[in-house]
Parts: sequence; structure tokens; C-alpha cells
Amino acid sequence: MKAPIDFYFDFSSPYGYLASRKIEELAARHGRPVAWHAMLLGVAFKTTGAAPLPMVPLKGEYSMRDFVRSARFHGIPYNPPIPFPVSTVAACRAFYWMSDKAPAFAKAGLKAYFVDGVNIGEAENVVRVAASIGCDAGEVRAALADQAVKDKTKAAVDAALARGVFGSPYIIVDGEPFWGMDRFAQIDRWLEAPF
Amino acid sequence: MKAPIDFYFDFSSPYGYLASRKIEELAARHGRPVAWHAMLLGVAFKTTGAAPLPMVPLKGEYSMRDFVRSARFHGIPYNPPIPFPVSTVAACRAFYWMSDKAPAFAKAGLKAYFVDGVNIGEAENVVRVAASIGCDAGEVRAALADQAVKDKTKAAVDAALARGVFGSPYIIVDGEPFWGMDRFAQIDRWLEAPF
Repeated sequence: MKAPIDFYFDFSSPYGYLASRKIEELAARHGRPVAWHAMLLGVAFKTTGAAPLPMVPLKGEYSMRDFVRSARFHGIPYNPPIPFPVSTVAACRAFYWMSDKAPAFAKAGLKAYFVDGVNIGEAENVVRVAASIGCDAGEVRAALADQAVKDKTKAAVDAALARGVFGSPYIIVDGEPFWGMDRFAQIDRWLEAPF
Repeated sequence: MKAPIDFYFDFSSPYGYLASRKIEELAARHGRPVAWHAMLLGVAFKTTGAAPLPMVPLKGEYSMRDFVRSARFHGIPYNPPIPFPVSTVAACRAFYWMSDKAPAFAKAGLKAYFVDGVNIGEAENVVRVAASIGCDAGEVRAALADQAVKDKTKAAVDAALARGVFGSPYIIVDGEPFWGMDRFAQIDRWLEAPF
């Protein structure tokens, strides 16, 4: 098996969601598995000084339009979530509590927020999404309050930042970083041969 | 003749430069002319709160790498300019002083800075670039100090901001805004038929 592609996303990131719908197909074309990593954009923003897109004048309005248009362009279902953005700490903790089920939870959580109108910012909705992929609701609730899970999540987010992950989606291929779904064409060529 | 595509760029924007090398080919495929508009990212940043990319932790380092890689990906000559970024007020004024020659000056100025290592931030280099496309150096020098040219430039930059132009490149097609060279595939399809 060839080395995996590292795929970083935030549960509240529209571009991260759109990329999540295409990354496995892209990787599979090159015989690569995908290593899924949840991250917390809010923590990265403290380093980069960025603000959530809806709060940024001009760019915010453009982005709301671009999310919808980009989803149509790529043929991906997308219903603008309200509220947006939301805290994704609970979703991120649930993600890092799971092991084998984490990618399935990522996909279910992103679909819940960006397609089904479920506020993934609420812990009880995180529990429901986890239950929908076969987790025990009581265990998930306990995990979200577990200090060890909080520590594991913090360590994972810190590790992402240490690798330079400042946005969502952020993809690392054999050490080469790519930010944004807009870079999929470059990733595709890079996987053929670094250029 | 069909309606032109509005193409906004900053003389110190690597992505604006890369896009400038491809926009006319893209427009021509759809029988469209290109209306070139210089803008001042520094003015837009006051509205959006953005900072020049090299000053942003993590994102800055990524961007310097992405500029070079994106140029290679698109097969466009690119030599990382030093210093970077620079003030493009003088270049912008020269651009708005010209009329028919403005697009040729845009291309010459971007090539000077991003290929030939000429600091386009210095007024005397702006004069040289203008002279290289057939302008009279003395007239350009006078224009750069002319209050009417300053006013025309300010009005053009304000008009860009009023249209929501917050980045470079920024392309408007029949009222639909697209930010970034990464959106060329969407523009291409939009010009076929809005989606």
C-alpha cells in the first residue's frame, strides 16, 4: 500500500466539506489511501489572525456566494447551514475518540451540517451523528466529557498546526502541502510526479 | 462584440500576475474582450482587515511556496520578486493615466516585477516600463505627480471596492464575481452558460 494522503478539515468549513466529497476519488486514482484529520480552524485563526469568513467585509459576502456556486460546479449537494460557522470542538473530540470509525463519522458529520441542516455545533447532535454510524450514544456522551479525549484532541490539533495546517481543506502529499480544493488539479499532477 | 470580462489585478500580486497570463486566452475562447483594471490591494485590505501574505504566520510561508509551484503548474515564468510586496500606487497611477496602452503597460509592468526582477514599487522603474511600451518618460513623470491622475486613480480604486473587489485577481463576468485564478474553470463554464 502506498503512503496515505493527509486530509485536514474542519467540521464547519464549507470548502473542507466540498473537498471531503472528492478526496477519496482523487487519492484512489493514484492508489493512495486517505488519512482523515479533523482540525479546529478557530485555533489556527489565533495564529494567522484570520477571522471566520462571514465576519469579513466583502470577502464574506463573496464567500457565501462562492460556497453555493462551487458546490453546484462540482455537483455536490449543499444547503447553506444556519447558524454558520459553529464551534466544532465537540465534533472534533468525537472524531479523535473514534479510531476506525473516524472517517465514516467525518463524512456523516459533514453531511449532517452541510446537507441535512443539523447544527453540528451542539454536542447532542454530535452524539446523534455518532449513533447513526453505530456508536453507543452513552459512550459518546461520556467520551465528550473525558479529559483524556480532550487532551488527545488538543494534541492532534497542535500537531496539525506544527505541520503548518492553517486552513481547511489542507492536504499533505509526501510532505508537500496544498491548501484548498482549488489545488486538487495540482495534487492530481503531483501524485503522477512532483513538478 | 460581446460584453467584456472585467479583470482586476494588483501590480504586486503573484496570483494576479499568473492570472494575467491566462485571462485573454480564456476570454477569447468565448469571444469576449478583457477590460483591464488595476487595483490597490492595500486599500482593499483596510476594508477586509487582511494583511500582505508574507506577513501572515503559516499562510505566508505556504503562499511563497504556492506562488512558485502554481507558476510551474501553469507553465508561466516566475521569479520571486525581492522586495515583496511593494507599493503599487505609482504603477496604478501610470495605468490610469494611459488609455489604449493600459493593458500593454499592465503586462509589461507585471513581467518587469515577476520575471525581470525590476522593483515596480519605485516610480522611476514605472517610468522605464512605460517608456518600454512607447510612452514619453517625461510625460509619465509629470503624470505621476499630476493631481488629476491621482484623483482618477483614487476614483477607479474606490469604484472597484464599491463593486466588492477585495482581492487579486478578481474577475467579473456579466455581474458574477470570481476571486482567484483557481476559479478559471468556473469562469470557463460560466461563459458557456451560467450554472
